[in-house]
Amino acid sequence: MRRLVSALAAALLLAAAPADVVTQVRAWRQQHEKEILRELFDFLSIPNVAADAPNIKRNADALARMFERRRFAPELIAGAGPPLVVAERRLPNTRRTITFYFHYDGQPVNAAEWIYEPPFKPVIVAPHEPQGRTITLETWRDVIDPEWRVYGRSSSDDKSPIVALLSAIEALDAANIPLTSNVRVLMEGEEEAGSPHLESTLHDHADKIRADAVLLVDGPRHASDRPTLNFGARGIMNAVVTVYGPVSDLHSGNYGNWAPNPALQLARLLASMKDDSGRVTIDGFYDDVAPLTAEEKRAIDEIPDVAPTLMKTFGFSRPESADRLELRHNLPTLNINAMDAGGGVAGQGRTIIPATANARLDLRFVKNVDPAKQLERLVAHIRKQGYFIVDKEPDAALRAAHPLIAGVTRVGGYPAGRTSLDAPIARAISKAVADAAGGSIVRLPTIGGSAPFYLFSDVLKVPTIGLSIVNFDNNQHGPNENVRIKNIWEGIESMAAILAMP
Amino acid sequence: MRRLVSALAAALLLAAAPADVVTQVRAWRQQHEKEILRELFDFLSIPNVAADAPNIKRNADALARMFERRRFAPELIAGAGPPLVVAERRLPNTRRTITFYFHYDGQPVNAAEWIYEPPFKPVIVAPHEPQGRTITLETWRDVIDPEWRVYGRSSSDDKSPIVALLSAIEALDAANIPLTSNVRVLMEGEEEAGSPHLESTLHDHADKIRADAVLLVDGPRHASDRPTLNFGARGIMNAVVTVYGPVSDLHSGNYGNWAPNPALQLARLLASMKDDSGRVTIDGFYDDVAPLTAEEKRAIDEIPDVAPTLMKTFGFSRPESADRLELRHNLPTLNINAMDAGGGVAGQGRTIIPATANARLDLRFVKNVDPAKQLERLVAHIRKQGYFIVDKEPDAALRAAHPLIAGVTRVGGYPAGRTSLDAPIARAISKAVADAAGGSIVRLPTIGGSAPFYLFSDVLKVPTIGLSIVNFDNNQHGPNENVRIKNIWEGIESMAAILAMP
Repeated sequence: MRRLVSALAAALLLAAAPADVVTQVRAWRQQHEKEILRELFDFLSIPNVAADAPNIKRNADALARMFERRRFAPELIAGAGPPLVVAERRLPNTRRTITFYFHYDGQPVNAAEWIYEPPFKPVIVAPHEPQGRTITLETWRDVIDPEWRVYGRSSSDDKSPIVALLSAIEALDAANIPLTSNVRVLMEGEEEAGSPHLESTLHDHADKIRADAVLLVDGPRHASDRPTLNFGARGIMNAVVTVYGPVSDLHSGNYGNWAPNPALQLARLLASMKDDSGRVTIDGFYDDVAPLTAEEKRAIDEIPDVAPTLMKTFGFSRPESADRLELRHNLPTLNINAMDAGGGVAGQGRTIIPATANARLDLRFVKNVDPAKQLERLVAHIRKQGYFIVDKEPDAALRAAHPLIAGVTRVGGYPAGRTSLDAPIARAISKAVADAAGGSIVRLPTIGGSAPFYLFSDVLKVPTIGLSIVNFDNNQHGPNENVRIKNIWEGIESMAAILAMP
Repeated sequence: MRRLVSALAAALLLAAAPADVVTQVRAWRQQHEKEILRELFDFLSIPNVAADAPNIKRNADALARMFERRRFAPELIAGAGPPLVVAERRLPNTRRTITFYFHYDGQPVNAAEWIYEPPFKPVIVAPHEPQGRTITLETWRDVIDPEWRVYGRSSSDDKSPIVALLSAIEALDAANIPLTSNVRVLMEGEEEAGSPHLESTLHDHADKIRADAVLLVDGPRHASDRPTLNFGARGIMNAVVTVYGPVSDLHSGNYGNWAPNPALQLARLLASMKDDSGRVTIDGFYDDVAPLTAEEKRAIDEIPDVAPTLMKTFGFSRPESADRLELRHNLPTLNINAMDAGGGVAGQGRTIIPATANARLDLRFVKNVDPAKQLERLVAHIRKQGYFIVDKEPDAALRAAHPLIAGVTRVGGYPAGRTSLDAPIARAISKAVADAAGGSIVRLPTIGGSAPFYLFSDVLKVPTIGLSIVNFDNNQHGPNENVRIKNIWEGIESMAAILAMP
């Protein structure tokens, strides 16, 4: 009977009621939890650092097979970098087309820092049981505790979301609930490397990607763990700053407290870039920031304040700024993500004045802030501190002419993007996700992290919305990345709701 | 006839005239250059990083054989660290006993940074010939250019001085020039690791070491390349400062410009430790410094000002301080010799807020400055900047209670020592070396580098003098350490002059 009703609904293009969708999708998932996790485990077992071309190709091939199984027509688009994987499932009589964006590459790994298993050997950890028992596919029990977590690189960022979409479609199909949208999928293999080729690929293949909305499924939920939609993402650029000291390492006794030390110079330079309230002191750094609208401010006001929880979880007692995190996400950033001099402290202990000292900064951008202009501001700031700027190792003449010499190397980068919270598709998706969750959701005008949002919102000019399903405490980008299984289950429901929304 | 005169001189304990000593030693050396270099090459071929116990033992065994050949009675004194090698050649009717100190270990190496051959494959480089031709023992010509350099770890620091002493003794013996001193030799295998066991070994074996003077043969000549004597050495201590940020690396987008960044905090902390004139701003840092005497100031005034040459060689145009280097050597230092955060810039580019940031500082001390007290001043300074000091990774309660948390770990360390320039033995040695060189020498009240000088001057209470023979531009402690062959030849003459002085 249910099958008949569903078939009729499909024929008449009647969208299923949200509560019914959730009930049926959940029932299917409960019957198929092991299969879902097995597919995720297989996928996580394929190493996916963007620079590792052979394994990246294996990931792309695996994706093609996974989508083929759900009646998509997948295609691998080769280019200068990892292949772009696109897939489409075109249905008759749908209301619209939605393109889902994911990335299948992960951040680089240091296996030594992973406490349970190496990063590409996924493992389930039962966090609330004694000794954080680990569970493999072979040893798990019949009942899967939704609080268990799957550890592995890209478990959260961004492979679980892909498996969740596939499961949502399979669940809807099984329940004969009609999809109200054509579904297109676009999967990138170098997002963690800064998406260097996405723009040209989108330009060249816009016909395969264009839609009524783009849904970027990436990043963690808000720390309240409510289903989280976002309407913008920050842009990002890395800049490596090198301060040049003596032409080679010098003995710190023979020449110490006389020869200049680039590590100290770099420390001073970095210290000059931010004040005690977390405000970047580079001239013009905040000049072009687009102010938040009334609705955007309201959305932030509605978000539970999780600062105390976050600070406890992350083990610090004073944030850089007293402003709330979700407001800070709407400002550009300057962050030191790496620093080195003299081979590092963990290495061999040489008593030297190092020849150079380096810092890698990530700059994040918000709507209206131009990356190149922001980099120029950084360079101007360094110049203002007395530095001569070089684009390669300085020669003897430059060294003789300038007491302070620094190089600034830009690595990748792209701007921010933002979609209006008031766009009809934005309202529809917000409602579908909120209804499916049976409660309030979090709407973020801009997420803190970066995704190539602007390419869709500003270049492709399609309303673009981010959906985040994974737990916020997922150690994304660091060692011991994980996803809570409950978040996969709820992610399946959020995506099914969108696929079946009126 | 010469033999007869020498034998008579020995019998009568008549010291040979300085000019005669130099002439005969030089003639012997000119006949034996290849043998001298071959012995050095064999010695440099044995890896000698202090932590490499099997090779350190091979070095000690080689030394025993080398000194045995010159009629010394060598002994290896085993202890907690690398063996101490002592050797004595006791003669009848000598005026005094001189103990020579050397160290046979070298600084850690990174073979990738060595441009000619790996650090433990010695090679001669002809710097003024096209392409800096390299010469091995098999390919060299009959005439050895004294401007050639031997590249290899410890070529300057401190193996050539050992070979020079052995050659000086062999030359005097060959010329039947009587040694006016009993010669004792003391060779340490963990100087570059901070000499952790030297004090106890000297205490336990003082009877084998005590003498009328200790001659520490280590470190480079003054940059004027004049034969260099010093009467003191700075002490040293390493201190690793760790600033604790979030409990694990955080995503710099999700939490950047809100969660505190320990790399920035460390940068601020380091920047707070020195002012623009190179003066350490830590309270009391210079309080206990023993002022220079009139004679010590005169000795410094007599030294050629080599600052412009040094700055050109080392490729910088503004020293930390306008004071001359030799004056700076009589002040305590604070130097950043290594720094790291987020795995370093050269590594994998993760966009994170690193969990910790680290700096390794070397502190050097001069006469009267107590290492433990100086470390306390550093810790007090860090505390004054608002930090809570921990001696291990902070727990959740400490993290919740303190916004700024740092650890300070002391690594090794010993104080400075200094001998009066007016001591009779100091005058005698100064005269012998100056006469042999036929001109002026450099006398440094304190060298910039560190050696366990105080153990001899202050603990053993023996007048202690440093003799430096190697070229100043030897890349000591860094990659591509080298010694100019001319410096070995002149070092042989300086040491022979001391051994034969009245």
